[in-house]
Amino acid sequence: MNDFLASRLKDLRHIMTKSKVDYFLVPMSDENQTEYVPHDARRLRYITGFSGSAGFAIIGLKTAVLFVDGRYTLQAKQEVSEQLFEHHDLHGYPPHSWLSEKVQPHEVIGVDGWLITQKQFEAFQSSTKEKKVTIKNVEQNFIDQIWHNKPEKIVTPIEEHPLEYSGVSHTQKITNLAAKLNEKKVDAVFISLLDSIAWLFNIRAQDIPQHPMVRGYALLNAQGKAKLFVNKNQIQPVLSKFLGDDIKLIDLTKMTEHLQQEKMAHIWLDKTTVPHQVWNLFEKENARIYDDIDPCQYPKAIKNKAESNGAKHAHIQDGAALCQYFAWLYRSVPFKPISECEAADQLETFRKKREKFKSISFTTISAADDHGAIVHYSPQAETQNNITAQSIYLVDSGGHYLNGTTDVTRTLCFGTPSQEQKDRYTRVLKGHIALSQVIFPKGTSGKALDCLARQYLWQIGADFKHGTGHGVGSYLCVHEGPQNFGRNIALETGMIISNEPGFYKEGAYGIRIENLIIVTESSYEGFYGFETLTLAPYDHKLMDLSLLTADEIDWINTYHQRVWEEISPLVDVDTKDWLREATNAITI
Amino acid sequence: MNDFLASRLKDLRHIMTKSKVDYFLVPMSDENQTEYVPHDARRLRYITGFSGSAGFAIIGLKTAVLFVDGRYTLQAKQEVSEQLFEHHDLHGYPPHSWLSEKVQPHEVIGVDGWLITQKQFEAFQSSTKEKKVTIKNVEQNFIDQIWHNKPEKIVTPIEEHPLEYSGVSHTQKITNLAAKLNEKKVDAVFISLLDSIAWLFNIRAQDIPQHPMVRGYALLNAQGKAKLFVNKNQIQPVLSKFLGDDIKLIDLTKMTEHLQQEKMAHIWLDKTTVPHQVWNLFEKENARIYDDIDPCQYPKAIKNKAESNGAKHAHIQDGAALCQYFAWLYRSVPFKPISECEAADQLETFRKKREKFKSISFTTISAADDHGAIVHYSPQAETQNNITAQSIYLVDSGGHYLNGTTDVTRTLCFGTPSQEQKDRYTRVLKGHIALSQVIFPKGTSGKALDCLARQYLWQIGADFKHGTGHGVGSYLCVHEGPQNFGRNIALETGMIISNEPGFYKEGAYGIRIENLIIVTESSYEGFYGFETLTLAPYDHKLMDLSLLTADEIDWINTYHQRVWEEISPLVDVDTKDWLREATNAITI
Repeated sequence: MNDFLASRLKDLRHIMTKSKVDYFLVPMSDENQTEYVPHDARRLRYITGFSGSAGFAIIGLKTAVLFVDGRYTLQAKQEVSEQLFEHHDLHGYPPHSWLSEKVQPHEVIGVDGWLITQKQFEAFQSSTKEKKVTIKNVEQNFIDQIWHNKPEKIVTPIEEHPLEYSGVSHTQKITNLAAKLNEKKVDAVFISLLDSIAWLFNIRAQDIPQHPMVRGYALLNAQGKAKLFVNKNQIQPVLSKFLGDDIKLIDLTKMTEHLQQEKMAHIWLDKTTVPHQVWNLFEKENARIYDDIDPCQYPKAIKNKAESNGAKHAHIQDGAALCQYFAWLYRSVPFKPISECEAADQLETFRKKREKFKSISFTTISAADDHGAIVHYSPQAETQNNITAQSIYLVDSGGHYLNGTTDVTRTLCFGTPSQEQKDRYTRVLKGHIALSQVIFPKGTSGKALDCLARQYLWQIGADFKHGTGHGVGSYLCVHEGPQNFGRNIALETGMIISNEPGFYKEGAYGIRIENLIIVTESSYEGFYGFETLTLAPYDHKLMDLSLLTADEIDWINTYHQRVWEEISPLVDVDTKDWLREATNAITI
Repeated sequence: MNDFLASRLKDLRHIMTKSKVDYFLVPMSDENQTEYVPHDARRLRYITGFSGSAGFAIIGLKTAVLFVDGRYTLQAKQEVSEQLFEHHDLHGYPPHSWLSEKVQPHEVIGVDGWLITQKQFEAFQSSTKEKKVTIKNVEQNFIDQIWHNKPEKIVTPIEEHPLEYSGVSHTQKITNLAAKLNEKKVDAVFISLLDSIAWLFNIRAQDIPQHPMVRGYALLNAQGKAKLFVNKNQIQPVLSKFLGDDIKLIDLTKMTEHLQQEKMAHIWLDKTTVPHQVWNLFEKENARIYDDIDPCQYPKAIKNKAESNGAKHAHIQDGAALCQYFAWLYRSVPFKPISECEAADQLETFRKKREKFKSISFTTISAADDHGAIVHYSPQAETQNNITAQSIYLVDSGGHYLNGTTDVTRTLCFGTPSQEQKDRYTRVLKGHIALSQVIFPKGTSGKALDCLARQYLWQIGADFKHGTGHGVGSYLCVHEGPQNFGRNIALETGMIISNEPGFYKEGAYGIRIENLIIVTESSYEGFYGFETLTLAPYDHKLMDLSLLTADEIDWINTYHQRVWEEISPLVDVDTKDWLREATNAITI
């Protein structure tokens, strides 16, 4: 592998020299800042060998550096030769700081302006300002020029997302958004986030695995007319007909000339998401720029009645698949160990049989024993554990249904849990319940509630080093913004968030409990609460009842009763038998 | 009064016309942004009649506007004629927004640059930028020019704050701070916050009632040499001797010429606190400005061992005074009503007898029944309530002791509380206990813990519309920054904060429970907790025991036992009898 990489670096440096570029920047991201980077955009992996989900590289003519965060330090050491690459911490010593120290006056930094946001570009610009360097937008990505057998971009048919599920027609969404543009006195908005585009036009595709979206861009003007730039093969009469006359479908390769023709005086661009290349283009056309969050992000996050009802239905279907899976596991594991991969496949098989199921929403984390402590684990055939009759097993999975996206984690114990495991499980569960039950005034952010989920772990000096929860889309991304439990963004009714505290003991076991919850009105004016969407039992065996209050036990019993009522009519008799027991009321 | 005010406005407008000024800005603050505005600086009150603690006025040649926040809307209506002044909401429609709409191109806005910070000045500048107006720094404040019988500035002797209480000598603090200046590569820092000055030089004075500080400014350079600008009558040999050769005492009236002589190349100024006048002066001298929080604020907030031990001692003394007061109230009220003012005086009398007591730390909030619902109440002879045998009574008070500042609130019930009062009191108490008990990881902010104090009120759709707590100084301001429970500022061991949730029913009663707590190491590495400093019983009668968990009752019993042990040796036999009963363990 090192020989391959050395030769790739040599090829890249050859082009850099020819193009008079001293440093070439290689971000992780694709041209839409999509969380899941499609194979044809995995340039960082091609040039460094690093396969993690977050990172950045800078290739100089003599040096090369890879930046990864704490989660990936070890993996980077295994995957990326330290002879070819220096390794640095992405947050402790970020790329722009490194560059500001190393770059010499009048040197040239090359970057593909499609792959970094304007905000990232400005960070590089301001950190190298004093050195009088040039940051050059390269015409064709240097890595693409040397990439042999580069995977083809996947292009899939664009489908209408019916009104039954979306709740609001795309024409209505466009009318609302155009009103917003008029209110802000801008001529148009350029949208580069794929979930914004899918939401706004009520369209879905499968261009990216597990992310039902179209790869492209959109421009909407204040008169409610839009241009949607997609692959030319995706431009089909049936789609044009659905979208209507006000929306022009345009070949993505023609976008730049279209944008130049627009002659915008005042354009809305979100600096944190729009590619530098696009920002630059409008600046060159002397457009005045209004910088604000992508205006689809808030309305998309706030689910309407059709979407929240859809989510409820999808969660019942998903709960049925999950219960079938758990019943199967409890029946099988005592007699024969099951590998993590086989288990994940079986879960997908159960999901596939459910109504309106489209695909899993992310790669299943099927993690037995010590693997449970690896927060972003996914099983590999060569290194997987078996789930045995002594195992503690964490499974974090989800599905895309036409009417909603799910994401659920349960931790199961097949043997006899240790007192420590019961204590930690119960503290995680108490935090999970505290967050589920809280009533809070309008205007409260997720961040302000975060400590509720952590407090019982904190009591014993423990914590979990990940967010307590993230937004979830409606048959869209399983991670969506802007809301979560880590940001100062006010929660609004209709927002769906995951509630997933955990506890991890490295080399031993992991515990996580995750439901999706939706913000609802409470019975008190001006106060909100959460309704739990996810339906699957918590493992009684892992609870230390002496740590639970009467109120918490009530909550668990009520929830289990609801799981029983919703799920039992949908499952086979074996599952039903298991479910009856799994949802039995706790008595103390 | 209106005639007076009309004539003052007329005089002011006469000067404005003469000076070619179209609008004159009148902030609430003095020249140091002190929270408590000294009488000689109450210009806003002189020109508007408004006596609240937060506000702003803009006087035009024809219009005049008063801006106050929600707390003061009613009071402003009572005090300030709406014929003379428009009334607006300080936050909803702030002065700079109003001005940006009303001002005409090329008009002149006058302001006393000593009274507004650079940050405020820039807000006015940016909001009026498009109108091409001039913002003019007036030489002598226009209001001072028309103010007949303006109160004299109070000037008091400056005293050394002994090492026994400060814990670190002023020379050591200056050495540390100079190292910080060198680290940031600045030549000097200009300090305008009075508590920073008092802390840095280990000096105290009584220039402002209830705030033991010197009015002045300081300049410290990276060589550890300082200039302290104070009233010339405060420059005394004994002080010069204490301060040492590296600190020059300079007449405040000579400050401008001294600063001009300094020829600073790079100066540290805190934009949020330094007067525009000073910022302007350094800019005119072509100094490069490093803008960052006043570097005394953090070290001042983090109490050292001498300060935290001092605080503990001060709280024992203060608790003794408070218990004497409560015992006296419980003895007296059943036989004869006591007025709120008389009660407050009696409390001060008890405090005055305690060791190292200097003065009360703020005007006592002595509030019976409906007055308890007015958060910033202070009793007036004409309008006060009597505390009767049926009263629910809220008392929020504190003292300055040479070794620490206290601030404590208790709510007492002399009659039989209603079920609602017990419910609300218990929910406030539960929040107060939750915050007292929490263990949290290093790096956690006060804001992230805030919901712990509010959660039990939220459960019934209730809340309190004030901060959960504020920083407290060490024989310094009873409100100090930067930490509190509303800001994203990491809590550090040694910070003292108040823990004061409440519940208010307008026109009926108010409940608040307040202790000072200090951040300490917990028994878990990397985790902090709080230790409670305040020592005074909670009223058993107001508790609804059915709402308290066993854990909470344990906490109350342990705390009451501690109050008994610390306070009983210091009080008379009558108080002791009362205290024995008030601290009896709750059994259920």
